[in-house]
Amino acid sequence: KMLRRVLCTVLFMGALPSLAEVSQGHISVVLLGATGDLAKKYLWQGLFQLYMDQVSSGHSFTFHGAALTALEPGQKLMFDVLKKLVCPPDEPPNRCAVLKDQFLKLSQYHQLKTAENYTALNREIETLLSQEGLKEAGRIFYFSVPPFAYTEIARHINSSCRPPPGAWLRVVLEKPFGHDLESAQQLAADLTSFFREEEMYRVDHYLGKQAVAHILPFRDQNRQFLDPIWNRHHVERVEIVLKETVDAKGRTSFYEQYGVIRDVLQNHLTEALMFLTMELPANVSRAEEVLQCKLQAFQSLRGLERNSAVLGQYQAYAGQVQEELQKAQDYISTTPTFAGVLVHSDNLRWEGVPFLLASGKALDERVGYVRVLFKNRAYCTQSETLRDAGHSQCKAKQIIFYIGHGALNTPAVLVSRNLFRPVMPEGSWREAVGQSDLHVFGQPLSDYYVYRPVKDRDAYSVLISNIYHGRKDFFITTENLLASWGFWTPLLDSISHQPLRLYPGGVENQHLLDFEMVSGEVAFTLAEPVELLNPNRLMPNDYRTIQSKFRQSPLVSGWSEDLISQLASDIEETASRTVARSGQFHLALSGGSSPVVLFQRLARHHYAFPWRHTHIWLVDERCVPLTDAESNFLSLHNHLLQSVRVPYFNVHPMPVHLNQRLCVEEDRGTELYAKEITALVANASFDLVLLGVGTDGHTASLFPRSENGLEGTQTVVLTESPVKPHQRMSLSLPLINKARQVIVLVLGKGKHDITTLLSRVGHEPRKWPISGVSPSSGQLVWYVDYEALLG
Amino acid sequence: KMLRRVLCTVLFMGALPSLAEVSQGHISVVLLGATGDLAKKYLWQGLFQLYMDQVSSGHSFTFHGAALTALEPGQKLMFDVLKKLVCPPDEPPNRCAVLKDQFLKLSQYHQLKTAENYTALNREIETLLSQEGLKEAGRIFYFSVPPFAYTEIARHINSSCRPPPGAWLRVVLEKPFGHDLESAQQLAADLTSFFREEEMYRVDHYLGKQAVAHILPFRDQNRQFLDPIWNRHHVERVEIVLKETVDAKGRTSFYEQYGVIRDVLQNHLTEALMFLTMELPANVSRAEEVLQCKLQAFQSLRGLERNSAVLGQYQAYAGQVQEELQKAQDYISTTPTFAGVLVHSDNLRWEGVPFLLASGKALDERVGYVRVLFKNRAYCTQSETLRDAGHSQCKAKQIIFYIGHGALNTPAVLVSRNLFRPVMPEGSWREAVGQSDLHVFGQPLSDYYVYRPVKDRDAYSVLISNIYHGRKDFFITTENLLASWGFWTPLLDSISHQPLRLYPGGVENQHLLDFEMVSGEVAFTLAEPVELLNPNRLMPNDYRTIQSKFRQSPLVSGWSEDLISQLASDIEETASRTVARSGQFHLALSGGSSPVVLFQRLARHHYAFPWRHTHIWLVDERCVPLTDAESNFLSLHNHLLQSVRVPYFNVHPMPVHLNQRLCVEEDRGTELYAKEITALVANASFDLVLLGVGTDGHTASLFPRSENGLEGTQTVVLTESPVKPHQRMSLSLPLINKARQVIVLVLGKGKHDITTLLSRVGHEPRKWPISGVSPSSGQLVWYVDYEALLG
Repeated sequence: KMLRRVLCTVLFMGALPSLAEVSQGHISVVLLGATGDLAKKYLWQGLFQLYMDQVSSGHSFTFHGAALTALEPGQKLMFDVLKKLVCPPDEPPNRCAVLKDQFLKLSQYHQLKTAENYTALNREIETLLSQEGLKEAGRIFYFSVPPFAYTEIARHINSSCRPPPGAWLRVVLEKPFGHDLESAQQLAADLTSFFREEEMYRVDHYLGKQAVAHILPFRDQNRQFLDPIWNRHHVERVEIVLKETVDAKGRTSFYEQYGVIRDVLQNHLTEALMFLTMELPANVSRAEEVLQCKLQAFQSLRGLERNSAVLGQYQAYAGQVQEELQKAQDYISTTPTFAGVLVHSDNLRWEGVPFLLASGKALDERVGYVRVLFKNRAYCTQSETLRDAGHSQCKAKQIIFYIGHGALNTPAVLVSRNLFRPVMPEGSWREAVGQSDLHVFGQPLSDYYVYRPVKDRDAYSVLISNIYHGRKDFFITTENLLASWGFWTPLLDSISHQPLRLYPGGVENQHLLDFEMVSGEVAFTLAEPVELLNPNRLMPNDYRTIQSKFRQSPLVSGWSEDLISQLASDIEETASRTVARSGQFHLALSGGSSPVVLFQRLARHHYAFPWRHTHIWLVDERCVPLTDAESNFLSLHNHLLQSVRVPYFNVHPMPVHLNQRLCVEEDRGTELYAKEITALVANASFDLVLLGVGTDGHTASLFPRSENGLEGTQTVVLTESPVKPHQRMSLSLPLINKARQVIVLVLGKGKHDITTLLSRVGHEPRKWPISGVSPSSGQLVWYVDYEALLG
Repeated sequence: KMLRRVLCTVLFMGALPSLAEVSQGHISVVLLGATGDLAKKYLWQGLFQLYMDQVSSGHSFTFHGAALTALEPGQKLMFDVLKKLVCPPDEPPNRCAVLKDQFLKLSQYHQLKTAENYTALNREIETLLSQEGLKEAGRIFYFSVPPFAYTEIARHINSSCRPPPGAWLRVVLEKPFGHDLESAQQLAADLTSFFREEEMYRVDHYLGKQAVAHILPFRDQNRQFLDPIWNRHHVERVEIVLKETVDAKGRTSFYEQYGVIRDVLQNHLTEALMFLTMELPANVSRAEEVLQCKLQAFQSLRGLERNSAVLGQYQAYAGQVQEELQKAQDYISTTPTFAGVLVHSDNLRWEGVPFLLASGKALDERVGYVRVLFKNRAYCTQSETLRDAGHSQCKAKQIIFYIGHGALNTPAVLVSRNLFRPVMPEGSWREAVGQSDLHVFGQPLSDYYVYRPVKDRDAYSVLISNIYHGRKDFFITTENLLASWGFWTPLLDSISHQPLRLYPGGVENQHLLDFEMVSGEVAFTLAEPVELLNPNRLMPNDYRTIQSKFRQSPLVSGWSEDLISQLASDIEETASRTVARSGQFHLALSGGSSPVVLFQRLARHHYAFPWRHTHIWLVDERCVPLTDAESNFLSLHNHLLQSVRVPYFNVHPMPVHLNQRLCVEEDRGTELYAKEITALVANASFDLVLLGVGTDGHTASLFPRSENGLEGTQTVVLTESPVKPHQRMSLSLPLINKARQVIVLVLGKGKHDITTLLSRVGHEPRKWPISGVSPSSGQLVWYVDYEALLG
């Protein structure tokens, strides 16, 4: 009855809706976890703000707090929170007081524990609506509960609390959304069995931060200025940073499982990164278009490697974990509390531009920002001292989305005055007047156009408003989430043994966490200070490649990533030496997955490689068109050739596709390739042949008991593979054995058995073709990673 | 007799040579133009310095001043100069006084005008040597005379003044060494008929500037630090700058013919550029090795285009020229007194790094420097205000060779302290102590390691000492000189009609001469201020491309460079539109020289071109191997394909080389190409075909009265060219006419006659194959430059 009175009262307040508008229908908001921390701190206030903003929208509202607590104590807990709701400064106090009173009356507490509880809630909502004669517009279920409770609650809502046809259901989910790609996929699959994609609103509260939320609108509204400069030719670097002064004390039970990458980088900073790098859709407020562009942007991200990140842990963390989680004194936490990550986007717009993502706890200041620094393309003829202050083109040019805290202590958008005067939406952002003496990012504030929000809005208020408006572009779709985990998971996997730099915390850190980019990787600027080292940590030395013998030939071994680095360097050295000697370098490469990592390494880290004098040959090829996804050449092309400058004439794909057909003997592809080799390679002796090994002991496309290629005079042969595609072209063993150097690369646990076997057997090429590799006058070197070698 | 006394006296002074050392022999130095400005200001002082330095070297010396003036007045003039020679501060005054006295006694004046004068000089030297019983070591002839006198003097020296066998001849030449490539070649040829290359010492006094002379030694001695960073991955930009405050007043008769590029950039700044960009020879003091590396570095320079430079002229210059050269009031000088030039070196080390060369008169300050600015690769986690001052990696990193004047007012080498502490030769450079508060290049002096020369040496003293030591690496060889003119002459030619920006001079210039880089070109940062414009100047508008009709089809015309820019933009637009529509763009390109400029333009200025979706076809090909210098494909490859990312599969060279032989009909190359077209190009209708026109009206490789290709169903044909190589492969007219768009590009005066003819004739493909180009449903557009159109 109280409800009815309130629902009617709203009709009679000034500037409030007419009956016709009320017919928009009723919205029930259910806040699960209504007495938890997040609810106390932000969510109720956000719901109250929604009510204040939308009371005259034509919708009527009821608010249902819910928790596991029984009715009476729960009610008390919840209303203690509600009484403390504050009126925002921009709201007339009288109106706010009246509305707060109404809001309290529209709010109820429910215990939601059993299936019956959910049925009861549903019944109450239905009863109320029919009593009040209200049409139902929709229901919002806000999950402010731990993730392990998600599935259970979702099941109940789906089975008992769906609104009737014609009304919508919106469920709001709070992170964490999984722990890695696999767990995120599992959780997503679970939720998808209860909710449709459009019903789910996954919150990343960063998308509610005013400066972050304005990135896309800013890019849209300033297209005229940004179009020519928003690309690799003009952008020098981008920094996306969230620094905290607090540490994880009291939250280690959560933090120890997640760490800074899962807590901040995978979600908040990645979303900001996407807003910067994605192509602009024609309509930036259409969620579907935004999502498509965002997913494309994810596709362009270059995969992260172990050395894409530097990691740290504040010194007190270990003690806090030991204490809070009752761990033993010698427990070592490998959870990073600081990370700096270098991200590259490999499309034409951003190729080569470094995107630096950094976040950490126990740092010197609390601040968040997205900073786009442009290249200085100007030369100022007048000497600095004799120049007008003005806004010279020689000063730094930057655009900063200042998320909050720090020196400015407010969200802001800053644009260097020598760049352009941005178009900003007048209703929501206004130019800051009365410039202070503050310096931000190396320049006085007076060098920027500075805009601040007209109203400071808490992120949750913004998000709750967007849930109400159905603005799905402010939330993380399943595809978006999985794309992000897909991007971060390989790094998370590869750094689990990475040593962490310990840092004292606060301003004491000084330069300890500074890092720099070196050929596509990052490293701390200062060498590891010995006194801070925990002697129990794995040392970088543990990863060094070791050298010994395998099958009477030199063996280089190490963890796969180090092994590949070593191999790439060794190949470059051989190439340079060979070119210096003979003017050219003939390199024959195998297909398969192991070399891909090598190709990428060569493309990205070996700028001095003498590509212009290198000839690229194929060791073997599948009988498919060169542009087929199965083609060895295509893989080589996409992972290496596209990124380096090998002259067209020096590239020698195998002629498996002649006269519009594949590997037909009478087309004489093998003869053609043999002739090409004879014509160009002195003595048909390649400078370097790179081989792999199959689990059956095959190498190149020479399989056990192959009729061709294991012996005889034919140098290029057609063979049959036991697996599809069956037809292959391959260099023969005798030709391979003429090479000056042969390298066999063996990676991964899956190769452990064959590696062990090979360490024992002799020369039996018909059984194990790889055992027939034995250069007549050249050198054979094995590169075998620890997993293949040691299992 | 006086001479004999002096020559003997030197034996008895402290720390002076023993007899054995004297046996090194005698050196005669002849200074031609001994009473001129340069001699008065620098050369005699330099010779005196040489004497002081080398008096105990074991060589004996005589100094012969020479000029056109008769003996007595000449003698007086010369000795007035010699009396004013000063003792350097680092020389003990007593020793210097004695040596000056001796130097005067060893010096003689000669009138050198007629052939007899030269014979007489030679006789005197011979007589003296035989009287004194001295062995002749060599003769130095220093040409401090106007260049028009060079040939005459050279002839006399060659015919009358050569030293006897076993002694060397060194002739020293002062710039200017020509006016452009042609005149420099002429002058070089003249000199070469009198002197051997190793006898000529061409002076660029910049090579005697201590900071410039130290660039190579610095690179050599600091290899350990520079090796990893002296490349495009680390260097952000390089500035090579010589600014003057003086103007050309009183020297306009010289300056008006030369201008700032010939006066400063072609020689001084280019030499500094070479020291920076050349690969380091194993031995930096071996002149021959240095020269070879320097010549290679010249080879790597990207050709300059009109928009590689911004040019200015100080406002008072025109008046000075009118007055000094008695020109009419309406005389317009097109001589630049300021130039900013963007140079690129296209090798792997420097590709993409901007080298900015700037020089001018009437600027705000007098200063010269070479500044290498490194990229900032660091991220400093600590906020600036909370960071130790220290030498953070986030501060700018630079190496500066400070040539002189300016704020430091001394030659110096500066290296940022966060870069490395350089190795400097202790004897000649010392660390500057007592740091001042000065800021240089945006940083306090205390941020640098600063080194100054132990002794400030005038450039000419350094050079004269190097002539004595036969250090040819300090001088400009003929090859070096011609390479430099070869680099600058195209720019000089193309800017002769370029508008100049007028500037007031001095500090008034403010930002007027600031310039910036935009996609490989430079432009002034500020728009042309209208009030400074001379209404008689050619306006940029004059160069705009115009549109009209030619042979009933659209015609685009303009000066060739503008036309090419326009064409490149139009092709990019067509490509983008076509890819958006059909996913791919089939572009067929012709051989010949005109497209080369277009290829370069596309490679350098069109970063957004959808290369990844573009297929490249050949319109015609010469029957030579693809790697032959005559191959159309090779030209396309080197000027375009190497610089962009067209997938390997999308490149379609014509199969002129099958079965190790060229264009043999039974190898069916034409069929192969036709099949490839049919397989990949929808309807065999290319999206764009680019054609040229020969002076005989041929297009593609379809020549007048060709048996193949002008009609019929064959799409790819073998043809015969009237010029070598005779055999060709070509697309046929019927195939060309199936294209969606055909563009005919016609450039240069040489095409004026055929253009005029074509404007009148109808469809007569057997006479003029180009007249048969008439796309059946596509569009034909003519791009004809003014020279071809208007003659």
